[in-house]
Amino acid sequence: MARILGIDPGSRLTGYGLILTDGPRTRHLAHGVIRCGDGPLPRRLTLIFRELSALLLEHQPDQAAVEQVFVNRNVQSALTLGQARGAAVCALGMQGLEVSEYAPAEIKRAIVGRGRAEKVQVQHMVRVLLNLDESPAEDASDALAVALCHAHVSATQKHMPVDSPALRWRRR
Amino acid sequence: MARILGIDPGSRLTGYGLILTDGPRTRHLAHGVIRCGDGPLPRRLTLIFRELSALLLEHQPDQAAVEQVFVNRNVQSALTLGQARGAAVCALGMQGLEVSEYAPAEIKRAIVGRGRAEKVQVQHMVRVLLNLDESPAEDASDALAVALCHAHVSATQKHMPVDSPALRWRRR
Repeated sequence: MARILGIDPGSRLTGYGLILTDGPRTRHLAHGVIRCGDGPLPRRLTLIFRELSALLLEHQPDQAAVEQVFVNRNVQSALTLGQARGAAVCALGMQGLEVSEYAPAEIKRAIVGRGRAEKVQVQHMVRVLLNLDESPAEDASDALAVALCHAHVSATQKHMPVDSPALRWRRR
Repeated sequence: MARILGIDPGSRLTGYGLILTDGPRTRHLAHGVIRCGDGPLPRRLTLIFRELSALLLEHQPDQAAVEQVFVNRNVQSALTLGQARGAAVCALGMQGLEVSEYAPAEIKRAIVGRGRAEKVQVQHMVRVLLNLDESPAEDASDALAVALCHAHVSATQKHMPVDSPALRWRRR
């Protein structure tokens, strides 16, 4: 049994999703979006850290996972997104949580079975897998997806010998 | 009288420099470099946050300043630098410090008098202005430079009417 928190960091909206996993079975616990508004960036970063720290105290997750980001746009937006991600990762690290990172293709493969799945398919599968009545907001859905991916990878690893190449790769 | 902390964030080395300012007069208090090693990025970010938080408790600065970064290299390095910066800014924000940001040209202008000064000139002037026997490590010197720039700008602002265009610009 493990409580897994997934995070989708952003400088305006940071999504989070918490699931409970017991081997292959998963259950939805909570999700939501931290809204940072459009004030000065330092204040938004502090808000991410503060809200996330409060969520960690409330929900006490055992593991955390964040999507690896590849920004195709410009260097400035990468710098801004990086700062939001740094704020989120710090909040997790300060509570003693190890942070696992997953590439977008890896998340899609874990949820839909194909690394090149459409975003809407991923959102649909998140809803189905977690038995949700409504689709969560996009950022929260992405956060639940990375939590589900982590649950899937962790369950798979338990059946692999400790020194398998796949596991070494995951530990990079 | 104000204690100003300057930070030069980086994912491997984060420089800091603390000065005491009393209007136009400044005095060196402390400087150093937080060394993050080359472990996983989440651990390095947490180290930046933790070490910086300890420094803030020890030195109790009143104000904080960070250099604005413009990364000319690639998007991936911007993302990494952004995360280090996010970790540093969060640590400042969580202690209730407002973070002022200065462009590199602005810092050079404040220290050397020219926005296009060489890095070595800035380092020399930091040493002269703060009466240091030795040149600090590069990252610590950069951190002291941004602290000196903030002291300079703050001292200038006190002599400007509250609604001057320059002050509005600084408050962006």
